Amino acid sequence: MAPLLKDELDIVIPTIRNLDFLEMWRPFFQPYHLIIVQDGDPTRTVMVPEGFDYELYNRNDINRILGPKASCISFKDSACRCFGYMVSKKKYVYTIDDDCFVAKDPTGKDIDALAKHIQNLLCPSTPLFFNTLYDPYQEGADFVRGYPFSLREGVPTAVSHGLWLNIPDYDAPTQLVKPRERNGRYVDAVMTIPKGSLFPMCGMNLAFDRELIGPAMYFGLMGDGQPIGRYDDMWAGWCVKVICDHLGLGVKTGLPYIWHSKASNPFVNLKKEYKGIFWQEDIIPFFQAAKLTKECDTVQKCYISLSQQVKEKLGKIDPYFVKLADAMVTWIEAWDMLNSKDSKEADANGKLKGR
Amino acid sequence: MAPLLKDELDIVIPTIRNLDFLEMWRPFFQPYHLIIVQDGDPTRTVMVPEGFDYELYNRNDINRILGPKASCISFKDSACRCFGYMVSKKKYVYTIDDDCFVAKDPTGKDIDALAKHIQNLLCPSTPLFFNTLYDPYQEGADFVRGYPFSLREGVPTAVSHGLWLNIPDYDAPTQLVKPRERNGRYVDAVMTIPKGSLFPMCGMNLAFDRELIGPAMYFGLMGDGQPIGRYDDMWAGWCVKVICDHLGLGVKTGLPYIWHSKASNPFVNLKKEYKGIFWQEDIIPFFQAAKLTKECDTVQKCYISLSQQVKEKLGKIDPYFVKLADAMVTWIEAWDMLNSKDSKEADANGKLKGR
Repeated sequence: MAPLLKDELDIVIPTIRNLDFLEMWRPFFQPYHLIIVQDGDPTRTVMVPEGFDYELYNRNDINRILGPKASCISFKDSACRCFGYMVSKKKYVYTIDDDCFVAKDPTGKDIDALAKHIQNLLCPSTPLFFNTLYDPYQEGADFVRGYPFSLREGVPTAVSHGLWLNIPDYDAPTQLVKPRERNGRYVDAVMTIPKGSLFPMCGMNLAFDRELIGPAMYFGLMGDGQPIGRYDDMWAGWCVKVICDHLGLGVKTGLPYIWHSKASNPFVNLKKEYKGIFWQEDIIPFFQAAKLTKECDTVQKCYISLSQQVKEKLGKIDPYFVKLADAMVTWIEAWDMLNSKDSKEADANGKLKGR
Repeated sequence: MAPLLKDELDIVIPTIRNLDFLEMWRPFFQPYHLIIVQDGDPTRTVMVPEGFDYELYNRNDINRILGPKASCISFKDSACRCFGYMVSKKKYVYTIDDDCFVAKDPTGKDIDALAKHIQNLLCPSTPLFFNTLYDPYQEGADFVRGYPFSLREGVPTAVSHGLWLNIPDYDAPTQLVKPRERNGRYVDAVMTIPKGSLFPMCGMNLAFDRELIGPAMYFGLMGDGQPIGRYDDMWAGWCVKVICDHLGLGVKTGLPYIWHSKASNPFVNLKKEYKGIFWQEDIIPFFQAAKLTKECDTVQKCYISLSQQVKEKLGKIDPYFVKLADAMVTWIEAWDMLNSKDSKEADANGKLKGR
């Protein structure tokens, strides 16, 4: 069983509504501290069920804490959640959408998603060679014949990407074509995404090691005033994977599942996505070809280098990417401002403390 | 359900004993033609259960058919199975070990491994971008949000690598350390191994498209008179994956499972493997760095180019690799000899026809 990392993990939840969904998660989440990032109208009150330990930030808080740098945090889009990553002082972050509930395993038992993420993060990844029996560090598994012994120590795991039963994470065109498709396939596996391979990272059920990769977990400029939405987690995933590959860190995907209750509106999604759908045809080759030099030996340096490449290469496609590249730099400045030695000692101002 | 490819698929079985294990496979294998490659003493009679359609080759047959080129076919090692790939005239090959039985799925139903392999081979692979819901072409699955639309047609699948319940495919050191470990985890997934990522291909439960990749499915020089064993399928897998990546073909792994009944002797295995265990530390980086030029536009050309690189780079490690590189060339010559237009019309001589 995975240890309870009570003092080392924050749960980050972006929301515009009352957090009734937490009732179902109470047995699993109550030991942890929650960081709630309230999106939209800051005068609205978000109700949090009794007994949870939380801090809550609305847009006014974000503006006050970051000042002009608040421009890098999206508004009216769940991309705002990355503000929570920045203000956390813990080693690990788990982020979950407020329409995600506790899933059951094939035996009917409630899945403690967070415990599984912790287990994933605490054991190594194997990006350099594929193991056909999946995660070799799981109970009852190992490296198969032909797996080089020199690679069996693996590399530190930076990201644990969990999946979804019921409503799969489809784009608007697929939602429109397959409105009734539900994911009922419980795949009992965790695996490392091999080095050099990009993947679509979904922010619905995601854990990561802030110390290893936090500064790359920027969810971009989406929503209010921006030409796209629903590419926040994708953007973060592409940047994160390129940087993990460069720094020798691992990304896992698979278990744990959560129960995704409600498909978002495909017509609204299409409007948010349509530019992204054709831009991604250029963005993927861009990230596949992105190069980081030896000098890029920290996440911050890697991220700044990526921002320069975004501006230069993707800026030609649309001025949006120039703005995004600038926001990537602002994000790193803001991250460093809140995560410098001094700021770690003095707690950030303006939090609404719960409990 | 996958179609019965009765006239398009051969089942290749290497053996030294009577093929009683076929009784259990009768409902699934009887519609197909079997190619039995008898290893060891050619005067021994291998009994095949009634009602199967088969041809059987022993060492004398191999020597007669290939003449001096028979030197490329291993003796006293299941690597001899690749002779069966060469004499098959079908589009697809399935190969299975004679200690592999029908496994059951989690509902208790017998798994028709061959049908699942056929399904895997008939639908495309997705090596260029990772899909977090595994094979997007399976019933109830699709490409997730953020998967580029231009990549959704996938590429032709050349290899379907199936797994094993009960006795996992471990090397001798792992067998020695974990003598009681059994694989009981049924992972309900098929996935494409991403481009650029090597994997340990096991020959126990393996299907492939002969037309697409056959000439690269050489199981090397193992067993009698050779310094190693148990690296036959691994060697083939590394060559195959590099060539598939170059030619834009896909390799899938995962379902179907077979039931692997008996662990081989770890002490005997250690003797066969020990040179391979340290050689593989150089072989993996070699294959990771192997380059194929644009001129290599057929499997044969790719394979000859690899053989040259093997001789040049791995030949420095041990003279065995010089011999292996030469055998790779002989293999291609023998393949082309048996698979030229003329030889396709005239049936190969010396077969013992069954039924």
